[in-house]
Amino acid sequence: MRFDLPSDKIPTAWFNALAHLPEPMDPPLHPGTREPVGPDDLSPLFPMALIEQEMSPAPWVDVPGEVIDILKLWRPTPLVRAERLEQELGTPARIYYKDESVSPAGSHKPNTAVPQAFYNKAEGITRLTTETGAGQWGTSLAFATAQYGIECKVYMVRTSFDSKPYRRILMETWGAECVPSPVADPSSPGSLGMAISDAVADAAGRADSHYALGSVLNHVLLHQTVIGLEAKEQLALAGEGLPSVVIGACGGGSNLGGIAFPFMNDAGVRLLAVEPTSCPTLTEGSYGYDFGDTAGLTPLMPMYTLGADFMPPEIHAGGLRYHGDSPIVSALVKAGRMEAVACPQSKVFEAATLFARTEGKLPAPETGHAIRAAIDEALAAKETGEEKVILFNYSGHGFLDLSAYDAYNQGNLIDE
Amino acid sequence: MRFDLPSDKIPTAWFNALAHLPEPMDPPLHPGTREPVGPDDLSPLFPMALIEQEMSPAPWVDVPGEVIDILKLWRPTPLVRAERLEQELGTPARIYYKDESVSPAGSHKPNTAVPQAFYNKAEGITRLTTETGAGQWGTSLAFATAQYGIECKVYMVRTSFDSKPYRRILMETWGAECVPSPVADPSSPGSLGMAISDAVADAAGRADSHYALGSVLNHVLLHQTVIGLEAKEQLALAGEGLPSVVIGACGGGSNLGGIAFPFMNDAGVRLLAVEPTSCPTLTEGSYGYDFGDTAGLTPLMPMYTLGADFMPPEIHAGGLRYHGDSPIVSALVKAGRMEAVACPQSKVFEAATLFARTEGKLPAPETGHAIRAAIDEALAAKETGEEKVILFNYSGHGFLDLSAYDAYNQGNLIDE
Repeated sequence: MRFDLPSDKIPTAWFNALAHLPEPMDPPLHPGTREPVGPDDLSPLFPMALIEQEMSPAPWVDVPGEVIDILKLWRPTPLVRAERLEQELGTPARIYYKDESVSPAGSHKPNTAVPQAFYNKAEGITRLTTETGAGQWGTSLAFATAQYGIECKVYMVRTSFDSKPYRRILMETWGAECVPSPVADPSSPGSLGMAISDAVADAAGRADSHYALGSVLNHVLLHQTVIGLEAKEQLALAGEGLPSVVIGACGGGSNLGGIAFPFMNDAGVRLLAVEPTSCPTLTEGSYGYDFGDTAGLTPLMPMYTLGADFMPPEIHAGGLRYHGDSPIVSALVKAGRMEAVACPQSKVFEAATLFARTEGKLPAPETGHAIRAAIDEALAAKETGEEKVILFNYSGHGFLDLSAYDAYNQGNLIDE
Repeated sequence: MRFDLPSDKIPTAWFNALAHLPEPMDPPLHPGTREPVGPDDLSPLFPMALIEQEMSPAPWVDVPGEVIDILKLWRPTPLVRAERLEQELGTPARIYYKDESVSPAGSHKPNTAVPQAFYNKAEGITRLTTETGAGQWGTSLAFATAQYGIECKVYMVRTSFDSKPYRRILMETWGAECVPSPVADPSSPGSLGMAISDAVADAAGRADSHYALGSVLNHVLLHQTVIGLEAKEQLALAGEGLPSVVIGACGGGSNLGGIAFPFMNDAGVRLLAVEPTSCPTLTEGSYGYDFGDTAGLTPLMPMYTLGADFMPPEIHAGGLRYHGDSPIVSALVKAGRMEAVACPQSKVFEAATLFARTEGKLPAPETGHAIRAAIDEALAAKETGEEKVILFNYSGHGFLDLSAYDAYNQGNLIDE
């Protein structure tokens, strides 16, 4: 059963979690001076509108009409009650998922790629650079820049560039340029940290260019709150009050923040982050200042971290392989407002397969983490008989991750 | 701009084009006796409910509630006005597309896979066999059988099985068994005709098994009419009257028939079939009785055909490589009620890429044919200044066809 909102119900303001935190956030620090970073430090890479959003104390931030014009190509996204999954589990819980897989790029990422492209264009920038690992973020920025007629250059981690051509082709179809990173060393397999360095150096060196990031930063998570804001209205359409628990997979934190932040002020609503056991930032990391990248070029951010030099194993949920986490997500976990659990990938694929066989759709491996936790919550409700309402973010589809399912189907999936 | 129908607006009856044809259809003939085929000839392979639908004179056929329960996992599908494409073309035409790519398998095929699985289960069948080329139909039947808890065995053309593993993995994730065909000769690359033979022989030899077909037959096209029935209601929601032209790509005819048949009685609505120039069944074939398969095992059907031994070149729109066509589509073309055009694949990919860059979504190569014709209609309207309303079937997404886009992007696409 699907609950749709009409096109004119796309949220017209983003929910700014930063302004609703129990305690003010510690500022990011300059990597050289260790002094708080100011707008001038960021202006070579980002437009002023995004820098302001990064630090904004406003509880709500208006969504420009020109952004809504593009978001409405796929938004509002469906809220779906997973009745066949509920029946299969025999749970009294009601399970709802917000389907972000219907975007052109197949994930929630375009929700922020579009406003980032818009604000850059509005400030005269004609070219954006970024890095991408498996390609989810790169494809989303390629889509968004195509809509505004600006150029896009994506530095893709070389191992992914060589072994997983599909998202590179998708970027090129939308008109972006995609090159393997590190550019300077064709013999290196590359890493996300190296690709960040390439993309930042490129943007910093050209007056027509800025840099764009797909997760972690405050303004990125701000843009993703359309997910939770729509879901709240759709739950009301479905005749529900507030959910008992809101669940999202967590790598850098953007799909989780997107669905969970709009519920942070609602007492009694549990917020749950799900991460891979192989990269357990929130469940086993420590809280403190750390670099966003491996090379130590980015500002130091206050967050849970496994250490900037932590190298997670090669799990299939590439989007969750990050040593740190969004500072806002980290602050909520530290304050006890958000919970976190970790799941091994074999249990994730078991859950994703059960979802595919009951609800039909094939989830991305990242999304499988949220499904695993939603199923575990539903099974716990079966034990207690509680009629709880579970909401999770179906952050993306798995059509470009089928080799991971093949490994699982063939019994070749390894838990690290 | 999207026009959604709520879940309770899924059509409760299919439109039976067979009962609305200007002249009665000639019957299929037995391949051995050349006498009209009767229900007894078909009962080893199909359930009685489908055999009745194949020959039904009823103008409407009820959709069982158990079928709607599964269809509502993704139906009603969106009707979208392609405003950004219109702007790019500078056309006064209004272009709408019906988005069938949102189904679990990513195309319109599950619309018939679901009722076929249902009727077979209702008559005690516990196992279905079928053939598949690139895998669109095999994945759809794998999805549908998973929903009803019956077994599924798919014979996949060996060249596709070896070179395109993704849809095989998808079938296995839904629990189906997928094997390369021909089973008896591992050195053969296989063909759709050989795979049909394997699947039919398997089903004919087991009392628990039937066979399922994904296009061409009357009952298959009947099931697809939910597409056009919903679109008609959604055009009204959008404030439109009847469309000027309804467009669908045509291989066996099922996505075309699905969107076009419900408009066949509406005077002034043009119906347009789009086929590849490399397999020009309707535009260059001849009308008469021919076999559905290359081996001459199926009944002879009255249709446009290039000859059962015609071997189309290896274009990327694998779903349109068929020597024949649906008898109902053929009858409408023969009667002058439906038009047909043929497009070379370079022009198809040009159109598909323009669509991706303006509307965001990546179309399947088959769907690209409908987009090409829709764009040509819109450009013609620009010449004449006519404010026509164009409706086309966005039959599937291209996430599993990215290598075809790579060939186009790199300038390596050949027109046969």
